[in-house]
Amino acid sequence: MSAIPVAEPAPEPGSLLLGEIREQPAALERLLEHSDQYARVAALARERGLELVRMVGHGSSDNAASYGVYAFGLLPHWTALRDSISLSVYYGAKVNLRGSCVVALSQSGETPDVLAYVERARAAGALTIAITNDADSSIARAAEAVLPLAAGPERAIAATKTYTAQVAALALLAGHAAGQGQAVADGIKATATLLDAALPSLERQLAEISVAFAFVGRMFVIGRGPEFATAREISLKLLETCRVAAEPLTATDLVHGPLAALDGLFPVWAIGSDDESLPAVCEAAARARAAGAALIASGPAADRIAGAAFTVPVPDPPLTLLSPLLSVVPGQLLAWALAQAKGLDPDHPAGLSKITHAL
Amino acid sequence: MSAIPVAEPAPEPGSLLLGEIREQPAALERLLEHSDQYARVAALARERGLELVRMVGHGSSDNAASYGVYAFGLLPHWTALRDSISLSVYYGAKVNLRGSCVVALSQSGETPDVLAYVERARAAGALTIAITNDADSSIARAAEAVLPLAAGPERAIAATKTYTAQVAALALLAGHAAGQGQAVADGIKATATLLDAALPSLERQLAEISVAFAFVGRMFVIGRGPEFATAREISLKLLETCRVAAEPLTATDLVHGPLAALDGLFPVWAIGSDDESLPAVCEAAARARAAGAALIASGPAADRIAGAAFTVPVPDPPLTLLSPLLSVVPGQLLAWALAQAKGLDPDHPAGLSKITHAL
Repeated sequence: MSAIPVAEPAPEPGSLLLGEIREQPAALERLLEHSDQYARVAALARERGLELVRMVGHGSSDNAASYGVYAFGLLPHWTALRDSISLSVYYGAKVNLRGSCVVALSQSGETPDVLAYVERARAAGALTIAITNDADSSIARAAEAVLPLAAGPERAIAATKTYTAQVAALALLAGHAAGQGQAVADGIKATATLLDAALPSLERQLAEISVAFAFVGRMFVIGRGPEFATAREISLKLLETCRVAAEPLTATDLVHGPLAALDGLFPVWAIGSDDESLPAVCEAAARARAAGAALIASGPAADRIAGAAFTVPVPDPPLTLLSPLLSVVPGQLLAWALAQAKGLDPDHPAGLSKITHAL
Repeated sequence: MSAIPVAEPAPEPGSLLLGEIREQPAALERLLEHSDQYARVAALARERGLELVRMVGHGSSDNAASYGVYAFGLLPHWTALRDSISLSVYYGAKVNLRGSCVVALSQSGETPDVLAYVERARAAGALTIAITNDADSSIARAAEAVLPLAAGPERAIAATKTYTAQVAALALLAGHAAGQGQAVADGIKATATLLDAALPSLERQLAEISVAFAFVGRMFVIGRGPEFATAREISLKLLETCRVAAEPLTATDLVHGPLAALDGLFPVWAIGSDDESLPAVCEAAARARAAGAALIASGPAADRIAGAAFTVPVPDPPLTLLSPLLSVVPGQLLAWALAQAKGLDPDHPAGLSKITHAL
């Protein structure tokens, strides 16, 4: 008796993305199982007296690095920068890397120029750390230390659970570097629980809101401090899955020029968390509203942003620094819902592949 | 005999901006008169053994800082970063600043949070340097060393001659730090001469091209390496004077997601200079073209970017690192010409003022 091969049904467009958005609380909990490894690598950086962190990655990984600037700045008071990959890899600049700790962020661990950067940095004496989903990948093998993301295989082209896992990983590494690893780990655990509880109502809310954005061609997404990473990541999701020309700006940058471009067809998404930069975000949002822009307000302090047409609050995390783990989710869900509304397949955006091999 | 007061006629909209675009070669030559001061400050940084440059500024000044990353990386092999102002000024992070050199970039010298950053950095032991048009300004008084931009009063709201002077100032400081100050100064002088000769034909060419962009709502501007600063600055000019949602991307970032947003109504401006990143820019442009985008190619290597609907080459500078002084000018001129075509006043964009006081 020969079996007739049955083709597996193609998944519903968007089901991969939605499944991975929903998986984020579980992915964060898996990351925490590796907290000891993060503690050991942080101790190594401290033993070597390193206080300069060079983060490298592309796309969502680079957006997570924007968060790292604040995680390392606010917890161990280290300087963390999104380093130029082209400066060393393409231009061959011989910058002094002794005293530097390199954190390579790559979902696949195979991004070619990040690999080249890590190889050069390790040869030049930096402590090189790979944070990746794949401990057998090229970047993991090239680095001195490997830290698992443990987000699990990501099948949608647009990153979601990898991004939040990277944000949490940077917070965890920075927390251990500051001797506050346990508090940060506990905070991530509680945040995962809050996210899990909030997801069903966020899904419903964003599905409703998405209808209003069906014909939006352009948008600004503003945040400041740790939430600037959220603004970058939400913009990228909308660009790659919904063809919305969404541009991330700090609240301050908005009023240094781009404000002049606003009108009633150019909505502004403002992300507010309850920290020292909230007044700047509220004021920038008010100026955008005065210029005629429709406002979407999200984040734990969404209710404090006046005049919003749509308000999407997320829960208050136990540590304010962890709010980006929650704030990004409405943007991921809008990308999913809006792509559905527009008949696009958010799991497979046109022209993209999971690893960018060239360039 | 009493004189009857005669009101000065209001200048033609755009005449301030065009006058300042045209003044750039002269402004660059004025900067060079201060080369000795740049040499002394660079020597001071070297004496103190500083190899970490923290640049701070907003808007066009922050775009110039993107150039500084490469000027300091490629000439003295120092690490230069666009530091987070909010981390120290709003969040009060106590990052170790000994061993750092701070370069504050501010046209007016009055940007409040840049001033606050400089005051804190100086108190924390950094070498603080103000690069500004106004040596009597608050930031100049707060800094340990002041370097004149010498661009002269800038009356149009959108910065042009201040931006190119800042780029040249960073090249000059980096050049002196590398013991190559004279070569860089000579290169700037020759570049100013090339620009002066090229301006009339560039003005004519961009006035013609602007007609095709009258109804463009969104655009990507791509560059890499030193020309990423140009991509940022051209985007900002188009946003603030012409209401085009122009977003700067590195060539690599484009293919990590935003590529999926492209279609025939979403042009891409690619900036090519003849250096190690040109292949990446050419490949990203080709992928944008394949996605249906119309291409504008500019820069000294514009002719090497295949498939462009509009090609706007600028002269080859004597030092490749100085190409951003030339590459940005077609963008400034498109902003001017397109604003005229759309009936906007590029000298006074809606809602903007010359100094951003708040936030």
